[in-house]
Amino acid sequence: MNNVLNFGIPKGSLENATVELFKKAGWQISISSRSYFPGVDDSEMNCKLIRPQEMGKYVERGTIDAGIAGRDWVRENEADVVEVCEMVYSKVSRRPARWVLVVGSDSKVQGPEDLHGATISTELVGFTKRYFAERNIPVNVEFSWGATEAKVVDGLCDAIVEVTETGSTIKANGLRIVCDLMESVPVLLASTSAWADPWKREKIEQIATLLKSSLAAEGMVGLKMNAPASRIEAITKVLPSLKNPTISHLYNSDWLSVESIMSEKEVRRVVPELLKLGAEGIIEYPLNKII
Amino acid sequence: MNNVLNFGIPKGSLENATVELFKKAGWQISISSRSYFPGVDDSEMNCKLIRPQEMGKYVERGTIDAGIAGRDWVRENEADVVEVCEMVYSKVSRRPARWVLVVGSDSKVQGPEDLHGATISTELVGFTKRYFAERNIPVNVEFSWGATEAKVVDGLCDAIVEVTETGSTIKANGLRIVCDLMESVPVLLASTSAWADPWKREKIEQIATLLKSSLAAEGMVGLKMNAPASRIEAITKVLPSLKNPTISHLYNSDWLSVESIMSEKEVRRVVPELLKLGAEGIIEYPLNKII
Amino acid sequence: MNNVLNFGIPKGSLENATVELFKKAGWQISISSRSYFPGVDDSEMNCKLIRPQEMGKYVERGTIDAGIAGRDWVRENEADVVEVCEMVYSKVSRRPARWVLVVGSDSKVQGPEDLHGATISTELVGFTKRYFAERNIPVNVEFSWGATEAKVVDGLCDAIVEVTETGSTIKANGLRIVCDLMESVPVLLASTSAWADPWKREKIEQIATLLKSSLAAEGMVGLKMNAPASRIEAITKVLPSLKNPTISHLYNSDWLSVESIMSEKEVRRVVPELLKLGAEGIIEYPLNKII
Amino acid sequence: MNNVLNFGIPKGSLENATVELFKKAGWQISISSRSYFPGVDDSEMNCKLIRPQEMGKYVERGTIDAGIAGRDWVRENEADVVEVCEMVYSKVSRRPARWVLVVGSDSKVQGPEDLHGATISTELVGFTKRYFAERNIPVNVEFSWGATEAKVVDGLCDAIVEVTETGSTIKANGLRIVCDLMESVPVLLASTSAWADPWKREKIEQIATLLKSSLAAEGMVGLKMNAPASRIEAITKVLPSLKNPTISHLYNSDWLSVESIMSEKEVRRVVPELLKLGAEGIIEYPLNKII
Amino acid sequence: MNNVLNFGIPKGSLENATVELFKKAGWQISISSRSYFPGVDDSEMNCKLIRPQEMGKYVERGTIDAGIAGRDWVRENEADVVEVCEMVYSKVSRRPARWVLVVGSDSKVQGPEDLHGATISTELVGFTKRYFAERNIPVNVEFSWGATEAKVVDGLCDAIVEVTETGSTIKANGLRIVCDLMESVPVLLASTSAWADPWKREKIEQIATLLKSSLAAEGMVGLKMNAPASRIEAITKVLPSLKNPTISHLYNSDWLSVESIMSEKEVRRVVPELLKLGAEGIIEYPLNKII
Amino acid sequence: MNNVLNFGIPKGSLENATVELFKKAGWQISISSRSYFPGVDDSEMNCKLIRPQEMGKYVERGTIDAGIAGRDWVRENEADVVEVCEMVYSKVSRRPARWVLVVGSDSKVQGPEDLHGATISTELVGFTKRYFAERNIPVNVEFSWGATEAKVVDGLCDAIVEVTETGSTIKANGLRIVCDLMESVPVLLASTSAWADPWKREKIEQIATLLKSSLAAEGMVGLKMNAPASRIEAITKVLPSLKNPTISHLYNSDWLSVESIMSEKEVRRVVPELLKLGAEGIIEYPLNKII
Repeated sequence: MNNVLNFGIPKGSLENATVELFKKAGWQISISSRSYFPGVDDSEMNCKLIRPQEMGKYVERGTIDAGIAGRDWVRENEADVVEVCEMVYSKVSRRPARWVLVVGSDSKVQGPEDLHGATISTELVGFTKRYFAERNIPVNVEFSWGATEAKVVDGLCDAIVEVTETGSTIKANGLRIVCDLMESVPVLLASTSAWADPWKREKIEQIATLLKSSLAAEGMVGLKMNAPASRIEAITKVLPSLKNPTISHLYNSDWLSVESIMSEKEVRRVVPELLKLGAEGIIEYPLNKII
Repeated sequence: MNNVLNFGIPKGSLENATVELFKKAGWQISISSRSYFPGVDDSEMNCKLIRPQEMGKYVERGTIDAGIAGRDWVRENEADVVEVCEMVYSKVSRRPARWVLVVGSDSKVQGPEDLHGATISTELVGFTKRYFAERNIPVNVEFSWGATEAKVVDGLCDAIVEVTETGSTIKANGLRIVCDLMESVPVLLASTSAWADPWKREKIEQIATLLKSSLAAEGMVGLKMNAPASRIEAITKVLPSLKNPTISHLYNSDWLSVESIMSEKEVRRVVPELLKLGAEGIIEYPLNKII
Repeated sequence: MNNVLNFGIPKGSLENATVELFKKAGWQISISSRSYFPGVDDSEMNCKLIRPQEMGKYVERGTIDAGIAGRDWVRENEADVVEVCEMVYSKVSRRPARWVLVVGSDSKVQGPEDLHGATISTELVGFTKRYFAERNIPVNVEFSWGATEAKVVDGLCDAIVEVTETGSTIKANGLRIVCDLMESVPVLLASTSAWADPWKREKIEQIATLLKSSLAAEGMVGLKMNAPASRIEAITKVLPSLKNPTISHLYNSDWLSVESIMSEKEVRRVVPELLKLGAEGIIEYPLNKII
Repeated sequence: MNNVLNFGIPKGSLENATVELFKKAGWQISISSRSYFPGVDDSEMNCKLIRPQEMGKYVERGTIDAGIAGRDWVRENEADVVEVCEMVYSKVSRRPARWVLVVGSDSKVQGPEDLHGATISTELVGFTKRYFAERNIPVNVEFSWGATEAKVVDGLCDAIVEVTETGSTIKANGLRIVCDLMESVPVLLASTSAWADPWKREKIEQIATLLKSSLAAEGMVGLKMNAPASRIEAITKVLPSLKNPTISHLYNSDWLSVESIMSEKEVRRVVPELLKLGAEGIIEYPLNKII
Repeated sequence: MNNVLNFGIPKGSLENATVELFKKAGWQISISSRSYFPGVDDSEMNCKLIRPQEMGKYVERGTIDAGIAGRDWVRENEADVVEVCEMVYSKVSRRPARWVLVVGSDSKVQGPEDLHGATISTELVGFTKRYFAERNIPVNVEFSWGATEAKVVDGLCDAIVEVTETGSTIKANGLRIVCDLMESVPVLLASTSAWADPWKREKIEQIATLLKSSLAAEGMVGLKMNAPASRIEAITKVLPSLKNPTISHLYNSDWLSVESIMSEKEVRRVVPELLKLGAEGIIEYPLNKII
Repeated sequence: MNNVLNFGIPKGSLENATVELFKKAGWQISISSRSYFPGVDDSEMNCKLIRPQEMGKYVERGTIDAGIAGRDWVRENEADVVEVCEMVYSKVSRRPARWVLVVGSDSKVQGPEDLHGATISTELVGFTKRYFAERNIPVNVEFSWGATEAKVVDGLCDAIVEVTETGSTIKANGLRIVCDLMESVPVLLASTSAWADPWKREKIEQIATLLKSSLAAEGMVGLKMNAPASRIEAITKVLPSLKNPTISHLYNSDWLSVESIMSEKEVRRVVPELLKLGAEGIIEYPLNKII
């Protein structure tokens, strides 16, 4: 049976957001605490829960055909995979994750070069070793089993490489960011063999299209109004130019129906202007997807 | 004051789903933990919370005019009522409830006939007695106050008749399903006297229409797009044929606006094809009701 | 930098409803438990959390330009401010808050005049003093730090002036309402100086328009259907007359598309009639705003 | 293997209090949500969770040897069992449960005899039928599946027989207690065959002794002090006379050590008097059991 | 009926700790969310829940005979009451509450005298006014309805007078403590009339004795051991000297039983020494009260 | 400052049980979610939260002087440390943790030797590699980031090495234990340098003594009774022989006071016998420590 795609759902911090996004895109993925196997209402898919840290390895081997994980872990593992597209999840955050080099606030370290001979604790051992090796800075990189920030606070190591979004937690703990080492966003990965298989590639692209349509609709709404034909040019100028509005004649009337897609922020700006231009019966309605 | 319909809301497992469904259908039913009387924003209705096991009895007597309960309990009580329509609640489950005959996994029972002389524990005493009597199998049917499955595990009885959806809990407890005795879905009941009263019957039918419209909209969405007039035939062929799409001319243009209703699963299939056929500005929006 | 509006969000019982309403209106206000400063995604606004009791004072001084608070507290403080519009939040309640005069159920007091020389406990000291002074009834008004109802139950005072919506809690505690002293709804306030500044006034009016549009859409839906041209008059008569329906020709057909805005309660009445008149493909969809 | 006692733990409202009491008495009973079989750290016992309503039936049959349940359900089932002792659980309440006859507050019913021909709803059908039959009052007794109080409020029946402790919930719902029909406390039951078996009887008596010792210690404490020998008579008079105090000589001294068991309430009274009589070094310590 | 003491339980932050302390002292106070009247198992007491801010006022008037509240609020109200004793609750904190003068971290204010003409926001208006008046510093003191710290952060006032224990929350919000104005602990208050009534005074003293005994037992334990008579002097020297140990002869033996009261911290130090001195069978047991 | 001991508290599954145990032993360790530094009320100690996986490494280096961790992780890291004593925590479980070799239930693997060439996923990479190397079985051992059991279910590896107590979760997931590889209990570790320092060694031994005393008291109680001198021999024979009972004369009486320490389970057996022998006034009281 060739026509099944093995797909990896990232276990952990992206898990709920991924399931939620698939739901908007039209797939019901059900993760039960009683079972290791997520269910999905698509007979052409087979889902597995995989740690982001291991996603690259299993996609590279072809054990699974495609999956979603942070780009940081793909690079950590130097996985040989196809990156299909980025997935910027607004539910988690629109900001990319940053891996930063961090020291205590009273440390004299100003740049990576000041860490000559130091002990660095991190979950991202491979990337960190390569980063310092490329710069010819000899350091001792140790794997951290967690609570990495506490180690530099406690004096158990000299510096850490840790993930953050805004840096605010790091500051709140009295630590200092020396510099950024890498930015990361979630990506949709495919194995090279799945990408070479026409059926699998089409399936992966279908998934990518619908996931991206759902992401594109976040914060977007439809605005619909009636407008006198004589003001239609002025009104269409006010509307955002990204997509053309849909305009149609009304029955037995000189008025037109105008419908346009825009962000909620643009609505704030546009509505007062539309009222001045004589638009009537303005309503705003929600959207699921913009394709 | 004739123009009030007494309506029974099923207390217990269907309670929240029923209130939620009425909300979608346009009625706000408010159940307070401080009061026995659910409120409803319709001066023509009067709601009462009734156990599903007792709904049939009270509708039969005409104490209440109509109500929602599982068909299993209507049959258990052999209630003489009008069944207006089925209500398959997706929020609880699309699968009907099954009453099954269950024994321990090491029991030798292969069919109902092997239970000659046995003790059977169940909440559905009347139906179970009739079932075995019709087959001339003498059994001792005992009322179970709950935790029925435990009784067969503990050896307190020989078999049980219990409700399940998938059978998975039964298997997880090391029990075995011998056979199915009855399937059940929620039904909207009316008393024969209310059904004979024109005003009450029209009111019950209004409620039935709107509840069913809300159920019909679950998992359904609207898809709207602009299409070149030259491709309109190909595009309408791709769309699900259940309902005709609504097509209208766009202002000062050769393009048409196309709008169709379909399930979220069909969207997954349709969107890639529409893109190939040249549809543009595709958006998906949510629906409350399909009538 | 002139172009920033300082806006007061009411801390406490209206807080979540206000943030929710701004969200529907297109503004994301984020209140963190770690910070005193609510964030807002509008560079022209600066939000502060202010107790409703103190909102009038700070708006009057111009410390903040505008804000939302109950009219009761504006009157308590006799604040000299501009009341831009009322905001009736359905999420909290559509009923206005009532300040009532309350005594124990066995008290002989029948009207305010029976409280000559009595001790009255309330959070609304200024208003209560003025109320009794205007009627020449000497009373001793004491500030209550909370749990005001308990004071009259415990015999710590003779009467209280307390806020309620339905009076049901007061009855449940065995107390009796003597009379209503004031009704109150949330209002949008502006300082006189901000209202005199053209940029600030326009900004305040933009906020008022969008908040009111969101409130207006609560409980409202869009209904869309196809109708034979021959029945269009009868059908439009059935639709609520508040807003004209939007009607347009369908492509290659004698049918028309009809779209109308109405409340969910009207849908209950309208749908059975539309079906009788031959409307087809009726769908109901949700709305965000009605402007 | 004869030396195992099958013991029934009452599922439901007494469940946690029973497990807690056994823990104080020295047995760890572990009830897992994943399993029907409670574990117990005594190889001579085997526990089962049984509904109180069904305990009498299973003890009577000897399916289980002994168990704890309310006396009300033992009488409802007219079970032929040995009542070993009462168990008044303070954690639930020291007051016995009362089954009362209840009507709406505006009913004219003043006594059971006024219910001639009425419909009575209750969970305790057998007892209620016998109660009215003994008084030659014909009534229609119906089994209630729960929410019994709502039925008399809603007018679905004329009266109910319901359990209560203080009657406060009944009053809060606007109902009225006509009279008490039965009082009930938890009892330890044994089957006649187990009671006739010397080993089982001794085991049941061991359990009874230790459960009662733990109940006896609730609210009781030990009080220990040093007292001059010259005041010992006055001091022992002040102490509660239920148990004699334990008095011993102190080393190289004319003082005595006095130790007594009393309730926490008696401590409140006794301590000020002891201080006046010259007792010193008074300490209070907790007790687990009083045998 | 003279022999009832009206006692005020402080509603709010001290409420649970007060109820807990009374429980240890031997009184069960039950506060129900459904009732304003706390119950108590002592027919000589009658409890009321009173805000600490209002406790002084009601005790002064004799509306209640005695109560517990922070000394800060007694001073704020300049209540003319008898302070029976202090109650340092370890469950809340052993540190007294401090009322401090606070400014923004970039303020130039170094002492109260720098606040000439400033606006100060506080819940403790009376005390603050007197504090500055005594020092001849003219300030504008405004009542704060809560979230006082936010006001100085937001620039709504120049300084605040606020309560804190460690000052850490104030620092975390970027504010600075200028100086301490008052320290406060909970106190047991009595009205002058209750104190003059012999029965009431004795009752208040009984309560005070038992509450203090319970507080004294917190963190204290009993240590009991057997010791050879020959080492008894060395062993008693090691034991804390606060209370004399209780020593008695053992039956048919040269050994003595030694029992002493000490804090858990002293146990850490004492046990290794006792082992070296030949003590045997050392056990530690918990205490409820030390009188 | 030499006289401070750096002590590692194990973060994670043993964390709460360790803090609880120290509390019983007389040390208050406070772990705040706001701070990395646990506080402790002993100026001679300094606590740090360390993952069990890293405890051995930091103790070996002397970064911390002593700590508690599972013996499994000490062996995984082959840490060169002093094992002071075992700590069998009853709150977590009295059973030691077992590291087991696990395969799918339909696997043909019967012993480690059948895994020639297989891929094994585990968190315990070092130990697992050594285990198979010692047996000359070539395998590919991969580090698992968690959810290890799912990997063998999903076919991502051939076998796993995982920790369990009872094996029940493994069976519930449809897996099979091939054999046990190692048992582990928590141990108190010290660095070789701290153990050589007299002050630090004495401090570590003080901690060990008190922790063990608290563990020894779990499930143990004191039993005290009065006994006639004539029956004292028979009574002492019934008491558990581990510790001699403490016996003393009563004042002006032929009775003796007898006090003994035993487990709760022994109480169940002993009490009925003591009653037969004429003991009176038997009480049971709780213990904190047995040294």
